Amino acid sequence: MDPEIARIREAIAARPRAAEIAQMRIDADARGKNLGLAKDVTVTPVVANGVPAEWTSTPDAGQDKAILYLHGGGYVIGSLDSHRHLAAEAGRQAGTRTLALHYRLAPEHPFPAPVEDTVAAYRYLLDSGMKPKNICIAGDSAGGGLVVGAMLALKQAGLPQPGCGWCISPWVDMEATGKSFTDRADTDPTVQRATIEMMAKWYLGDADPKHPHASPIHGDLRGLPPLLIQVGSVETLLDDSIALARKAGIDEVPVDLQIWPEMIHIWHIFFPMLTAGRRALASGGAFVRTALRGN
Amino acid sequence: MDPEIARIREAIAARPRAAEIAQMRIDADARGKNLGLAKDVTVTPVVANGVPAEWTSTPDAGQDKAILYLHGGGYVIGSLDSHRHLAAEAGRQAGTRTLALHYRLAPEHPFPAPVEDTVAAYRYLLDSGMKPKNICIAGDSAGGGLVVGAMLALKQAGLPQPGCGWCISPWVDMEATGKSFTDRADTDPTVQRATIEMMAKWYLGDADPKHPHASPIHGDLRGLPPLLIQVGSVETLLDDSIALARKAGIDEVPVDLQIWPEMIHIWHIFFPMLTAGRRALASGGAFVRTALRGN
Repeated sequence: MDPEIARIREAIAARPRAAEIAQMRIDADARGKNLGLAKDVTVTPVVANGVPAEWTSTPDAGQDKAILYLHGGGYVIGSLDSHRHLAAEAGRQAGTRTLALHYRLAPEHPFPAPVEDTVAAYRYLLDSGMKPKNICIAGDSAGGGLVVGAMLALKQAGLPQPGCGWCISPWVDMEATGKSFTDRADTDPTVQRATIEMMAKWYLGDADPKHPHASPIHGDLRGLPPLLIQVGSVETLLDDSIALARKAGIDEVPVDLQIWPEMIHIWHIFFPMLTAGRRALASGGAFVRTALRGN
Repeated sequence: MDPEIARIREAIAARPRAAEIAQMRIDADARGKNLGLAKDVTVTPVVANGVPAEWTSTPDAGQDKAILYLHGGGYVIGSLDSHRHLAAEAGRQAGTRTLALHYRLAPEHPFPAPVEDTVAAYRYLLDSGMKPKNICIAGDSAGGGLVVGAMLALKQAGLPQPGCGWCISPWVDMEATGKSFTDRADTDPTVQRATIEMMAKWYLGDADPKHPHASPIHGDLRGLPPLLIQVGSVETLLDDSIALARKAGIDEVPVDLQIWPEMIHIWHIFFPMLTAGRRALASGGAFVRTALRGN
């Protein structure tokens, strides 16, 4: 096994696992902040059409293009703090600024609150004069599913689609029907079916688990822009990515699914100590550059 | 629909469909030759360790790297003539020469004759002094499955793996179990389950349809090099590509699956009149350049 991911797996095995949502949130934020932030990243808090958010930028970032970044955490945990280094690095690799969104979290704010917040922030970018084709919506885990769920909400609202979508280890099936929940259960160090089912319950409240804005594999994806899906080979969520790729393909969306050997859920987040994380970010950044080129 | 692919679909619908193998072969060769060959392509026939083959090269091709190209045609039809323009263009995009193989065809020469011929030609490249890591094995349809089947045969023979594999609309499941044979039956203009079952019968003879050298989704793919899989969204063989990507991923092979909207089986072959064919070849060539870089 790659020694870098082996060390990360050891650290994950050794870390405490909180049972309370409040403590889970504190832990996730602390782990993100502990991963550090590059010195050349500027951070600018902003309220994006009512939603707390922040811009991160690196010296070579173009001003006319942006990644709208949606953090993961099962729609229940995660924040600007937990993912700041990742959101900033995604922008650096794409050559854009990043607007990371602090969307409302379940169970206090269940579905469709995060979808509504994402649409609101997207309108904020459009209202600021940014061309839709110059926006990439990106996210990891729940945020990766929210990328596509929000695109479907944009379509429903009659808004123009962004230039592309970048889904990192996306969670797109609230019912957890993937075979990989069984055949990858022994290899995935962080996500098990029970966790997903708990998060889905908190997120959905009374909503239909097949609602396409929550489980976009049940949506009509026609008209969505090119999607990049990146997933680790050991993930229980592997089949979420595969199902999303298939549905996107069938619905005539250009889609590129990358399966990365030995990599775990959202391995990108460990990029400061993980070569494969940096490579995956570089690959995602190259995808965004190509998709937004010439707009 | 993209007007270029619409015109190609019209031409396919209008062309005669032979029932006899001999006529099918003649037709495939004529169609390939009719697509023309760029004036700057040099063609050099060779016998590669007993297997008829030919080098194609373009002016900027590096001499130390090669694509070993395996044409499609269900292991029953296809030849150097049917695919010369495609093999040459794949090499141009990758910046390498191409050694296209005239492997033996079924039903006269059933499984594992094409696998044996591919291994023989690979040995020929190694014997000529080429480094394995400087070789990409590429192919389309049956040839795309043969890419992976041959890699498994190389592993079994104790030979080093090539630097990468490039599978265009690969056929990797002799049993045709993919759901796409049903849900893409109405959209695929060239490949239906009955065709696949006929070709499989001719190819397998008495062999096990689950033999991994014929149906590599049943193989142990660990140790194989990075794979690029490109498939069209309207293909009945869509699920062959998806199943291959999943199995490769599970077996810790770096894999990239691209699903191309509206594209048909081996759309690359129409690249002289199809922008998406040229783009897919360029994308494949870029993959090969990256995979073989620095070797």
